[in-house]
Amino acid sequence: MSTVQVLSDDALQPQAKAVFDDIRATRQSEHVNNFWRALAAADASLLQSTWAEVKQVMGGAGALDPLTRELIYIAVSVANGCSYCVHSHTAAARARGMTGEQYAQLLAIVGLAAKTNHLATALQVPVDAAFDAQAR
Amino acid sequence: MSTVQVLSDDALQPQAKAVFDDIRATRQSEHVNNFWRALAAADASLLQSTWAEVKQVMGGAGALDPLTRELIYIAVSVANGCSYCVHSHTAAARARGMTGEQYAQLLAIVGLAAKTNHLATALQVPVDAAFDAQAR
Amino acid sequence: MSTVQVLSDDALQPQAKAVFDDIRATRQSEHVNNFWRALAAADASLLQSTWAEVKQVMGGAGALDPLTRELIYIAVSVANGCSYCVHSHTAAARARGMTGEQYAQLLAIVGLAAKTNHLATALQVPVDAAFDAQAR
Amino acid sequence: MSTVQVLSDDALQPQAKAVFDDIRATRQSEHVNNFWRALAAADASLLQSTWAEVKQVMGGAGALDPLTRELIYIAVSVANGCSYCVHSHTAAARARGMTGEQYAQLLAIVGLAAKTNHLATALQVPVDAAFDAQAR
Amino acid sequence: MSTVQVLSDDALQPQAKAVFDDIRATRQSEHVNNFWRALAAADASLLQSTWAEVKQVMGGAGALDPLTRELIYIAVSVANGCSYCVHSHTAAARARGMTGEQYAQLLAIVGLAAKTNHLATALQVPVDAAFDAQAR
Amino acid sequence: MSTVQVLSDDALQPQAKAVFDDIRATRQSEHVNNFWRALAAADASLLQSTWAEVKQVMGGAGALDPLTRELIYIAVSVANGCSYCVHSHTAAARARGMTGEQYAQLLAIVGLAAKTNHLATALQVPVDAAFDAQAR
Repeated sequence: MSTVQVLSDDALQPQAKAVFDDIRATRQSEHVNNFWRALAAADASLLQSTWAEVKQVMGGAGALDPLTRELIYIAVSVANGCSYCVHSHTAAARARGMTGEQYAQLLAIVGLAAKTNHLATALQVPVDAAFDAQAR
Repeated sequence: MSTVQVLSDDALQPQAKAVFDDIRATRQSEHVNNFWRALAAADASLLQSTWAEVKQVMGGAGALDPLTRELIYIAVSVANGCSYCVHSHTAAARARGMTGEQYAQLLAIVGLAAKTNHLATALQVPVDAAFDAQAR
Repeated sequence: MSTVQVLSDDALQPQAKAVFDDIRATRQSEHVNNFWRALAAADASLLQSTWAEVKQVMGGAGALDPLTRELIYIAVSVANGCSYCVHSHTAAARARGMTGEQYAQLLAIVGLAAKTNHLATALQVPVDAAFDAQAR
Repeated sequence: MSTVQVLSDDALQPQAKAVFDDIRATRQSEHVNNFWRALAAADASLLQSTWAEVKQVMGGAGALDPLTRELIYIAVSVANGCSYCVHSHTAAARARGMTGEQYAQLLAIVGLAAKTNHLATALQVPVDAAFDAQAR
Repeated sequence: MSTVQVLSDDALQPQAKAVFDDIRATRQSEHVNNFWRALAAADASLLQSTWAEVKQVMGGAGALDPLTRELIYIAVSVANGCSYCVHSHTAAARARGMTGEQYAQLLAIVGLAAKTNHLATALQVPVDAAFDAQAR
Repeated sequence: MSTVQVLSDDALQPQAKAVFDDIRATRQSEHVNNFWRALAAADASLLQSTWAEVKQVMGGAGALDPLTRELIYIAVSVANGCSYCVHSHTAAARARGMTGEQYAQLLAIVGLAAKTNHLATALQVPVDAAFDAQAR
């Protein structure tokens, strides 16, 4: 159940169809996942700009390797409680070679960070002066 | 302002003092940051077990390199809105060699993930059958 | 699956039945959605006070028009990751006349706000003195 | 205290300077707030693309009026716990004419939505079939 | 810094003044904390209804003792990242007799819950049929 | 649908099997819920350490009674939006004797806390000096 239609290929308007073509060419896969199909139903312009941003940030050259980027994406998605994103980016990380050991360590870090995040917030710990970037 | 005292070294009980000694030896630094000082005031046992977990997960051998672990930690801390943790782990990532380019890309990924997390939640996108680990 | 029964009309006690009657009269619709049916099972008093608050805040006269109120409600529900609330208030917004263009713009704003929320938190940006209400 | 420098005008590189010029021209104000100054220090490209998105979504023509957009932005920022964003967008809403009565109603809606979000999540209320967009 | 004035007693209108009188009488303390002073500036009606709800839920007779209620309040406030609320309700719990041992255990539970919350979300664990209240 | 297999008993490796044996002995129940089965698939070491922490924090002697601990756990899980955890800990609280009246009051507190959390964050209320633990 979703708040908009999840469009099949034959229901796409030209702007959305062009984005789907680029997703397929970029990923070298026929599968276009439901996120894009729902976004296509909601707003073709938002679909286009969001895909362009994903393509640039997650797929382009960069200082972090593609797998590391996916691990960060999963971490944010878990903390934000986005069920869909957890599924899609865990699958993406596996497609980019994430091993079981790497996934296990990701889980351990995410769980630990959540725990200390809550402890630091509960204690309202004052930030150490040593962490001040202005003073570097 | 914090919900407990932030203990100075001379206010530590033996169990907490032993943990501080291990933090200093492990990090090869005299600086023990306020998170541990507040935790020492709240509960020396929780201080001990939390430090043991941090030391093992963030410092031990593992499938992910130490810097990648810190990037994941920052990502969770940002999404959970933990001001203290964002400061302390951004500093830790820099101490582990994070470059300005890596930090910039981390920011771009965290921002993008937050955006698509919210879009997927707003649209209540149904999870693709292709993402089902049970079916692998 | 829910943590309490989702009560059908014939399982209601008098206090809950009176609230359901008022929901139907106020909305001029026979449909009483599952939120109220679950709340009726949990606590008829909480059902009564929550409905009274919803009726007053969302339905009464006010400085914001009814559709704008629903858009704000959706925005909070998305950011809080409440799947049920996203569904129910998106439906409510449509019932109050939300167009596809308005929905598309709502999505763009929610996505952008989430992105900049995370960037500002990651950077721990200090609040500008110009924003201080005390100084106005 | 922030995780990067908050750049003054004379520390800007050309790409960032051009963005600041556009912010000033667009807003017809000399004040460039700290969010952009921190982003300039972190990454001029991210500064440029984020400003372009803010300008287009919040300032361009659209189905929702500019004040309504700000109210939605505040709502998301509150739910995400972004202190900086709450301050900056409350100030922006006032600059766009938000009255005290409108602000009071915004608060009432945000508070109520948070309450029912938590209740629906606590009860794990199943989504009504009537809300299914696929069935419309 | 706040988004509204934090009103001193002599700036109160009659409706807000009556609420402050009731807060003082109920708590048997002259101190009226800043939350109510900011709410008084934003909207006297919202001040009145919010105080009435706090008084009834937190102070009235009930199935949970007053200290337990405060511990739950702290837990929610930590998870929602509300700095102000963490401070005010930790102080309230202490005023109601919370011991250092109880606070330490609260912290341990909150930290553990956050950790398993994130693990369960990361793993997208399917809910056991045994937990279904409909089947009880 | 989950991101890992949910292991049945006959798919367990020795380390995981030993944990399951301890879960059954500790809880005096044959039912091992899906959280542990998914964690077993992801990482037996994380399974072991997480169960040890749950057993110690939730089951050991302590300053808070077992039911109160579960109520706090539910509160955090709701605020973090963890559907699985809400279900499992609401069931656990009932198994520990939570009455309908206690559950109703828990819901009222969680809902109220969420509301005031959002109001305090929206207003950016400055923390009262009276709440400062350093000054006690």
